[in-house]
Amino acid sequence: MLNLFHAPGSCSRASHIALCEADAPHTITRVNLAASEQRSPDYLSTNPKGRVPALVTEAGTLTENTAILAYIAQSFPEAKLAPLDNPFEFARMQAFNAYLSSTVHVAHAHRVRGERWVEADDATSIAAMKAKSPKTMAECFTMLNDELFTGPWVLGDAYSVADAYLFTLSQWLPAHGLELSPFTRIAEHHARMLERPAVQQALAADA
Amino acid sequence: MLNLFHAPGSCSRASHIALCEADAPHTITRVNLAASEQRSPDYLSTNPKGRVPALVTEAGTLTENTAILAYIAQSFPEAKLAPLDNPFEFARMQAFNAYLSSTVHVAHAHRVRGERWVEADDATSIAAMKAKSPKTMAECFTMLNDELFTGPWVLGDAYSVADAYLFTLSQWLPAHGLELSPFTRIAEHHARMLERPAVQQALAADA
Repeated sequence: MLNLFHAPGSCSRASHIALCEADAPHTITRVNLAASEQRSPDYLSTNPKGRVPALVTEAGTLTENTAILAYIAQSFPEAKLAPLDNPFEFARMQAFNAYLSSTVHVAHAHRVRGERWVEADDATSIAAMKAKSPKTMAECFTMLNDELFTGPWVLGDAYSVADAYLFTLSQWLPAHGLELSPFTRIAEHHARMLERPAVQQALAADA
Repeated sequence: MLNLFHAPGSCSRASHIALCEADAPHTITRVNLAASEQRSPDYLSTNPKGRVPALVTEAGTLTENTAILAYIAQSFPEAKLAPLDNPFEFARMQAFNAYLSSTVHVAHAHRVRGERWVEADDATSIAAMKAKSPKTMAECFTMLNDELFTGPWVLGDAYSVADAYLFTLSQWLPAHGLELSPFTRIAEHHARMLERPAVQQALAADA
């Protein structure tokens, strides 16, 4: 049985959706980010990075969405959640996910996690990061919408775990005062995702 | 024939080393970051993100080290550059690489690319990011050394593309005024890497 350490609304929603898409037997352990549970000694013994997601498997614990998503796709091949037999298409999926984790998520984090990159008492710089975040997030979603997204799913006709990850980060735009609608292809994708039972299941579990 | 868009000393060195390890027929196209060539219209037509690496294959162009490294490992399985038959171990490799790209590289980028996250004329905040970078980089290398690195290679006894990536980013510590030696296991790994012909080949090509 897999166990996902998950915080509702956070990036670990992507891994949760993928588990539901794969119909993978799993349990969820909620991590309360508002209470800084991810930095508790107990959680750090599971994931020393102090972040979600973490997926506990029979072989050990995995971290990082880009790794967990590919793991779920490879472990449940009958769910067809990745182009497992085509290294180029698989890499295209991994590249999309890597952009989400190392550029989009990072842009998002500058809104409320500025103390990672300047001293925690430097209120001026932290406010400057927060002020820039709508601009960087809009740039990211322009790149996703205009260049990286194929359609109707991320990779084209085949659904993949990249769709779960894109959907999850798309839901963060309002926190930056941005609407999804100007990014027309990503907005259509978001609506398409909401129709999937696995997405509905993951959202309902968080409610 | 593969063609790698590469900037000497940059993170694309990891992909270059992997190509050399795989003995993959390839050419290198140098991108001059100091001259901002990565933002030229010509390069943006190859990689709209304006970053290195980009790997041009017969099937299309790939970006992001974490994706390219896995692609090289999957495309040249006889080189044994990844645990291709074990989804858990493969995910452990991808998680290590994801930490390098989304946390370590991001920490590094705050030294000289602060304008990505605050307004370009905000010299105060940009200086504050630069001032914090030795601390965040040291935290990252403590995490790598104490928690994430197995030894003697990243994943244990088996060499993988994660070793090429770790080696590449390890070389960035001096830019932050840090030495590698306090991170004893990573320092030993660095010395071990320097003995590999593929690493010597990639370094010589950059010289």
